[in-house]
Formats: sequence, C-alpha cells, structure tokens
Amino acid sequence: MLNRLPVWKDKALFTPGPLTTSQLVKQAMLRDLGSRDTEFIAIVQEIRARLVALCAEPNVYTTVLMQGSGTFGIEAVLSSIIPPDGKLLLLINGAYGERMRKIARIYQIATKALVFPENTQPDAAALAVALEEDPAITHVAVVHCETTTGILNPIKVYGELVKKHGCTYIVDAMSSFGAYPIDLQNCGIDFLVSSANKCIEGVPGFSFVIARTAALQATRGFARTLSLDLFAQWEGLERDGQFRFTPPTHALLAFYQALQELKQEGGIPARGARYQQNYALTLAAMQAMGFRPYLDEDKRGYIITAFYYLNHPMFNFQTFYSRLSEKGYVIYPGKLSQADCFRIGHIGRLTTGDVRALMAAISETLQEMGITADHRPE
Amino acid sequence: MLNRLPVWKDKALFTPGPLTTSQLVKQAMLRDLGSRDTEFIAIVQEIRARLVALCAEPNVYTTVLMQGSGTFGIEAVLSSIIPPDGKLLLLINGAYGERMRKIARIYQIATKALVFPENTQPDAAALAVALEEDPAITHVAVVHCETTTGILNPIKVYGELVKKHGCTYIVDAMSSFGAYPIDLQNCGIDFLVSSANKCIEGVPGFSFVIARTAALQATRGFARTLSLDLFAQWEGLERDGQFRFTPPTHALLAFYQALQELKQEGGIPARGARYQQNYALTLAAMQAMGFRPYLDEDKRGYIITAFYYLNHPMFNFQTFYSRLSEKGYVIYPGKLSQADCFRIGHIGRLTTGDVRALMAAISETLQEMGITADHRPE
Repeated sequence: MLNRLPVWKDKALFTPGPLTTSQLVKQAMLRDLGSRDTEFIAIVQEIRARLVALCAEPNVYTTVLMQGSGTFGIEAVLSSIIPPDGKLLLLINGAYGERMRKIARIYQIATKALVFPENTQPDAAALAVALEEDPAITHVAVVHCETTTGILNPIKVYGELVKKHGCTYIVDAMSSFGAYPIDLQNCGIDFLVSSANKCIEGVPGFSFVIARTAALQATRGFARTLSLDLFAQWEGLERDGQFRFTPPTHALLAFYQALQELKQEGGIPARGARYQQNYALTLAAMQAMGFRPYLDEDKRGYIITAFYYLNHPMFNFQTFYSRLSEKGYVIYPGKLSQADCFRIGHIGRLTTGDVRALMAAISETLQEMGITADHRPE
Repeated sequence: MLNRLPVWKDKALFTPGPLTTSQLVKQAMLRDLGSRDTEFIAIVQEIRARLVALCAEPNVYTTVLMQGSGTFGIEAVLSSIIPPDGKLLLLINGAYGERMRKIARIYQIATKALVFPENTQPDAAALAVALEEDPAITHVAVVHCETTTGILNPIKVYGELVKKHGCTYIVDAMSSFGAYPIDLQNCGIDFLVSSANKCIEGVPGFSFVIARTAALQATRGFARTLSLDLFAQWEGLERDGQFRFTPPTHALLAFYQALQELKQEGGIPARGARYQQNYALTLAAMQAMGFRPYLDEDKRGYIITAFYYLNHPMFNFQTFYSRLSEKGYVIYPGKLSQADCFRIGHIGRLTTGDVRALMAAISETLQEMGITADHRPE
C-alpha cells in the first residue's frame, strides 16, 4: 500500500486530534531552525506570551511548553507540582479523568477519586463535602471537556470551592482551550494543560501548561522525573528562552503560525462560534438521519459529540467507519464503557462546508448499507 | 524582529541537531493524517521495520518509538527496564553520560559510575574490574558518540565484557546511529536509543529504541512513569500499530521520507562516508586557519568536532559565533568543563560544498575580527 499511493486529497479529520490544519500552518514547517537560534528563541517566547494573553494576566501567569503529547503535559503537572505529603482529589467522569488517576497511582500520590457516570457532570456538592471532610487534600484536578463523551464540566463552579479551601486547582483543558473562553484567574485555575494539536489548530509534538507563576514557583524540588520536570522546564525557558532538551522546532513554527491564524479569525470567540456552527449542523443532520446523541443537551459541548450506534439490524460500525474513511472522512470510535457510541469532532480547520460533505457521505453510506429512512426503527 | 522577516534562506546548521534536513523531508509534513488511520499505521510499522533492518535481525530485535526528544528516549529506557533490585553501571566521559546518572538518581536506581576525563574513552579494563568486583550490577550503559567532545567510545569492546557477565547492555547512540554501522547483536547491545533528528535526518519530535525483543519482554511492570513506559508503548504498537498517546504525525511522515532518502543515498555506509568527507574537509581547513582540535586523532569521530578557541587576543567566541550566524552558518558552543572549546557538526543534509562555504565564512570572520594568519601566535 505504501508504494502505490494515488494522487491524494487528505481525509478530513472529524476527530479529537490530530486535526485537519490549515495549509499555511503546515507550510510553516518547511524550515530548519536551530533550537538555540535567536529567531527560534524569539518565536518560542512569543508563543508563550500569546498563550498567556489568551486567558490570563501576564503578570500573574506564565507558560511552560513540554515536548510530547497532551498526556505528557498532564503527567508533567501531576508528577511535578504535588509535594510528597500532598493529596490529590480527582473529579472523574470519563477516560481522561481515569488517566489522571492512573498517573497519580504510578507516582504513589495520595489520591481521592470522586467518580461519576460518563453522562453526568461531577457533582459540585460532592466536591464541597469531600473538601470539608478531608483537610489533607491539597490539589484538585478535573477535565474541562471530557472527549470520552464531549461533556463539558463546569470548571468555574468547582474552582470556587477549590479556592475556598485554599487548594491548588488543575484543569485538563486539552480539547477545550482555544474553543471556549477561559479566564484562569476568574475560574481559580492554577495549572491548565492543553496541547498543540487541538483548538489552536497546530500540529502534534508538544503540550503547554499555563500556570499561576507563584504556584509554579512553589513546586521546586517536587518533580519525580527529569524530562517531565515542569519547574526545571520553566526555569530553562525563563533563563535563556531555550528548552532543556531538543524541542520539536517544526511543530513550534507551525504553532506560531496557528496562533496568528487564530487572531486573524477573531480570537477564541470567533473560533468557538465556528465550531459551534459545525456542531449544530452535525447534530441536526445526524438526528434527521435517526442518530441519537449520547448526552443530554445541557451537558453537551461543541468540541465533539458522541452518538449512539443506529438501532438497526444492518448497522455495523466497522463497515460504517471504513466506508466513510474510503470516501475521505475520518470519524472517531467510541471510548465508552457503558454504551455503544461513536464520535464526530467539530474542531480543527473544518467549516460548515466540510460538515455538509460529511453528512452527505454518511447518508450515502447508510444507503449503501441498506439502511434507508423508511426502514429505520424508531 | 518577528514581524519584519526578510526573504530568507535558512541558515545551515553545523550543530548536533536539530539539523538541516532535505526539502522533501520537510514537504512530507504537508499532510494531516489521523493517528488511527490505516495509512498512518502502515507508515509507523514500516518505520519500525526499517529501523531494525538497519542494524539487527528482525526476528530478534524490535523498535519502540517514543514521543519527545532523545532524552525522553533515554529516560524511557532507564526508568522502564531496570528492576527495583537492579544496579546500573555507567561509563561516563561527557555530559550525556552525566545525564544518565542524573536520571538514575531521580529514580533512585542503584548506580555505580565510572567517570573518565572528557578527552579519553572509558577504560575497558576498569569496566572489567567493576563487573568482577560487583556482582550486583545488572545493567551497563554508555554513550557511543559523546557529542560533548565528539569522542567515539568503543561500544563493541565494552559489549563483550557486559555479555560475559550476563548483564543488559544499553547504548546511547543518539548522534551516531545512521552514521556508523552498528550491528546490535555483534556488539551485545540489548537497548539502543537514538532520535529522529540526528543521522537519519528527520525532524525532531520523537526518539526510538531498538531493543532485543526478549530483553524488552522481560521488563513488564518495571516502568516508573506512564508516558515513558517503554514496555506499554511497545505493547500498544505491537497490538494495533497505534501509539498509546497522540504521536507527532507530521514528524513521523518526515522520518519515513528520511528513511527512503537514506536508502537512496546508499544506506549507512554512504551516509557515513559523506559525513566523514565533511569532517575531513572541516579539520584540514580549520587547522590551516590555526584552530586545534580538542581530541587526539584516534579518538575523534566524524559526527562533531570540538576545537579550542583561537589563542589570540582578538578572538572572542560570542563575536565569532554571531558573525557566522549573521552570514547564515550556525556552529555550536562548547559544553566542556575543562577547556574553552566550540563545536562544528558534520551531520545533516550538508555537503562538502556547504562545508567549504562555512570555512570561507570563518576565514572572512577572522579577518573582520582583526585576526590574520600572520598575526596568529603559534
């Protein structure tokens, strides 16, 4: 297969990432810059400054870039900022919350996990009780948009409780940052983690942590690894603008271009509006074809939507997925423990035109599979 | 500066990486592939197979790709393969050997370090004695080419001793893999680590570990992190060809193209020959301008060469470096504790034409600095 590639058009990616990016973002990678070069260092500092400017007061917050995927960023935070006698409270309602629990377990970090069903938001009252009952808790972490289901968790509500108890607040905003306006100070967030290849629309290669500088400064000596040492990484970037270890220079060039395009689009509100349009169009068309969304409306975000498999004897997800892929559209399998679902993402360089094309391809695929509107059971 | 970029030509990188890569390698990144896409999975498997084929028997060895820089790969190996009761012997003659010691210390791995001056190779007799004297030692690690100085360490000689004592042998071949033929089985190597943006001439974004499959299989449960868990990463790649966490898809596409170009060039011997030509030309021209190499000839590799600062009152390295950079040539500062040196790399997509251009620029720069051949002291 590798040797007989046809003239191609890349598939449109309706996934949670890696995403479809703009041509100019990719073209920004057609350069080789030295990692200690003054131009590269200036670009890195500009990226760091712009990220903070998107969500927080630059005098109070700072940015750390970390090589690797988003999970590397999450692990960098959890393994670097919690003191040996700290205790982590996790609000979990999906796979990414569970992943934080897994990381905490590996580092033997004392952890209390409040686990909620995947179709409900973590209960703020339960958080309040847990914080009241266990004064040993020093850190609280939650996922903003659980891409497991696409559920949007109310991070500001939790933040007020976390701050009331004087704890450090960690938010995994992997798939929401850049799509939803987040005011870190207003939400009480001390550490926010996201990744290059989500709603900023860069390519994968690094994650970033936006941290309250004073909170980060208090973590010296807590790191449990070398590569993922968040404080040391920040110190290096502050000292001479350089990464401690080779950065993904090309991915950073792409990200810088992506940040410029975010600004040109009108910033986070405009981008969020585009994604929301993609979501609304997807939902309406999918419902018209008989698909039911997994989540109730008031819990759904516009990042990614989980749909139940069609309740029809001829519906087979593997066939459905493969036929769409052959037509040039990549959707995403489910990751739910409780229900047979698949997911359609709304983020990346996709427009309503792309969504309409996907919907047409889905309609065609259903017909090919022998599923017509008339034969679909209620 | 960022807003007034002139029409540019990228600087030639005479560094240990990130390196100058071919235009086609960079152009391979002009695509967005889903990380679960069949085409992408096939490319990843092909990369893994080709890496093994470069240096080992595919039935005996396997490849693990790891997001992040080369250090992430080293840390993945050291933190994942040594059992709780293992003991690591380190042969150190430079900064990268010291970095392994730092990683071992962080994970509280029992370690014995044999440290040698930066201008000498670790003494095989000392290794033999240490292995004899301390039967607790289970693992031995060494750097092949210490880019600190460019010294080439005799990994086969050490390997024979390591195997004689039944220990696991780890080689950091970061900057040598792809430039020097290495037969893993012949050298007794169980785990070899290198990175995408060295002599395969890809772009930075991941490292790779070529491992004796049986040795890797014996490490289940030893990992001390989630992201850098070597065994779990391998298991995932073996199971369905997928990374556990988002891979740097674009860097992998570039690497696949780079592997094809390595083959077109004539494989590792031809590439090594090109680098050696770059080295020989650099050395001759630099010596003619009065620069002395730091290492004795029999210890020098052709990856990177350390030169003493010119012993002349008008020589100032910062000025020298900056003026070369302005002319479009990036050299590399020193990393030595004992001597004032700088470094010139010979690897990456550089030809003797590029080397000649650099030498002309150095000659011109010396003149600008008021250093003429006549005035140079012996």
